[in-house]
Amino acid sequence: MAKNRELVTLGHGSGGKLTHDLIGEVIVPALYGAEGAPPMEDSALITAPSTALSFTTDSYVVSPWVFPGGNIGDLAFNGTVNDLAMSGADPIAISMGLILEEGFAMDDLRLVMTAMGEAARKAGIPVVCGDTKVVPHGKADAIFINTSGVGVRRGGVEIRASGARQGDVIIINGTIGDHGIAVMSAREGLRFQAPVQSDTAALHTLVRALLDGGVEVHSMRDPTRGGLATTICEIAADSKVAILLDEREIPLNEAVAGACELLGLDPMTVANEGKMILVLPEREAEKAISIMRGHPLGQRSSIIGRVTDGRVGRVTCLSVVGGDRVINMPHGEILPRIC
Amino acid sequence: MAKNRELVTLGHGSGGKLTHDLIGEVIVPALYGAEGAPPMEDSALITAPSTALSFTTDSYVVSPWVFPGGNIGDLAFNGTVNDLAMSGADPIAISMGLILEEGFAMDDLRLVMTAMGEAARKAGIPVVCGDTKVVPHGKADAIFINTSGVGVRRGGVEIRASGARQGDVIIINGTIGDHGIAVMSAREGLRFQAPVQSDTAALHTLVRALLDGGVEVHSMRDPTRGGLATTICEIAADSKVAILLDEREIPLNEAVAGACELLGLDPMTVANEGKMILVLPEREAEKAISIMRGHPLGQRSSIIGRVTDGRVGRVTCLSVVGGDRVINMPHGEILPRIC
Repeated sequence: MAKNRELVTLGHGSGGKLTHDLIGEVIVPALYGAEGAPPMEDSALITAPSTALSFTTDSYVVSPWVFPGGNIGDLAFNGTVNDLAMSGADPIAISMGLILEEGFAMDDLRLVMTAMGEAARKAGIPVVCGDTKVVPHGKADAIFINTSGVGVRRGGVEIRASGARQGDVIIINGTIGDHGIAVMSAREGLRFQAPVQSDTAALHTLVRALLDGGVEVHSMRDPTRGGLATTICEIAADSKVAILLDEREIPLNEAVAGACELLGLDPMTVANEGKMILVLPEREAEKAISIMRGHPLGQRSSIIGRVTDGRVGRVTCLSVVGGDRVINMPHGEILPRIC
Repeated sequence: MAKNRELVTLGHGSGGKLTHDLIGEVIVPALYGAEGAPPMEDSALITAPSTALSFTTDSYVVSPWVFPGGNIGDLAFNGTVNDLAMSGADPIAISMGLILEEGFAMDDLRLVMTAMGEAARKAGIPVVCGDTKVVPHGKADAIFINTSGVGVRRGGVEIRASGARQGDVIIINGTIGDHGIAVMSAREGLRFQAPVQSDTAALHTLVRALLDGGVEVHSMRDPTRGGLATTICEIAADSKVAILLDEREIPLNEAVAGACELLGLDPMTVANEGKMILVLPEREAEKAISIMRGHPLGQRSSIIGRVTDGRVGRVTCLSVVGGDRVINMPHGEILPRIC
């Protein structure tokens, strides 16, 4: 991928001079760009606007590490921002832990760090601390990234997986399955007429718009690994309700639909990285949809189902061709290493 | 290592039912033990006693993952606690990101999680959130763990790598090189007459005793990767001072000294995981040493050097046999994958 064949060596993970050089000459310039760097300390000092915090962590092992629409750098940044946002918190600081395989190209590391830095600037949330480890060739797969994040909770907002109530409606902010299919196409070398791009994006400004707009939200989740099916099943189980989805209302790109048919996948089980599920009272739906469609990440927002009085934990889907089918939480791995 | 050959599979990292089972049946019981678990949420809600925070991250890739005196679980927990403590912060919450290689034994995962849980209970600091990824066999090396941590800074305490001043003394809380030699002995199958144990320990209570005791500290660091030499060189460079160490005063276990001689290593460059370097005014030294020697982790505390008026960044060491030698920051990897 990289032309310059300067490579990461074991010494770059030693904690000694080579590590200092790697951080100073590659990571920091790529991550912080022209606007210069806040020093990457072992331990960063941050000042929170409140003492009510959210704290989250996620490791990213996506394969391949670059795919249409992004790479592991922006993916790792956005994913942790979204975990914080889904708890109703405003993200204030992100950490980055790199595990590099010996022989990873320095220029590829620059690409990843640049993508993360751009995602951070776009989101307005800083990467404040980091760590770099290098393992011998064959002991990791190119690059793994852990991001952890701290956010500040809003007063008076209570959003939980268990918050869905009978009569609530289910809203999604756009098409499903894009991220998973983008990664699969890069991994398998598949070509579609219309290339599928990952939807990786930071959703905190969309959440902020909804909460600032006074929308009452009962539950909010991002359907990543395991896709929409897993998230909806979790909400139904945790909230002890039944949920009825309407397949005709679930936004789906034609290319993703085609790829899923080709690969024998149900798009409802394919990962998303820039999507959120909202569960809220029906009376709030119109306002929510209006706010969401006015945001760049919500233009295809749609009501895709409702909470009903069926058997607790049961998720059913009205299909496009009529009739309905039961949606189960996928048991094991459908698309491995999608994030 | 494990007798029960139940193994981690790719499905355990899917985010679906197997992941839920792994978390519920293996990770949470081992981590939280009999006292029961606070739910491991994607995003944990924590309430800080103040808005002035420290935030840190570290990934652990130690090989082998178990060694005399500990395993990757307590090592990862203690290491991040120490990063927070060294900034003068009281740790309040730790996150855990697991990357598992397909085929890792479930009983080994239980061992690691149990060690982490015991370290957390001993430290009185909770693991509040986690994430689990699984990669195919051959794409990682058994187990990697990222821990990130949030701490609360103390008012009025200013401790920086750049804080050392002329006339200050350098104190260490005990013997050097134990962790590195313990890991090397496990890796290479070396046997010493007196087995060397890792010194992995959480240092926050020792730091707390010093700060509660009113000791004025200019700089505080834990000499991990790269050992005492790297940390002292960093302090000298960042503080723009010279440092003179006295080798006769640096505590060293006989077995570690012997192993270093055998392996051709300088114990000053070998990693520690339960040691701290304090730089403070000479007038504070007696009080500091007295407090430290009264703490279980500081019984062999010793003044090992002082800040002098030599060339900026220069570190010299008076040797046991007389004469002195210059100490340089190790360039690259001395002992790979030591943490």
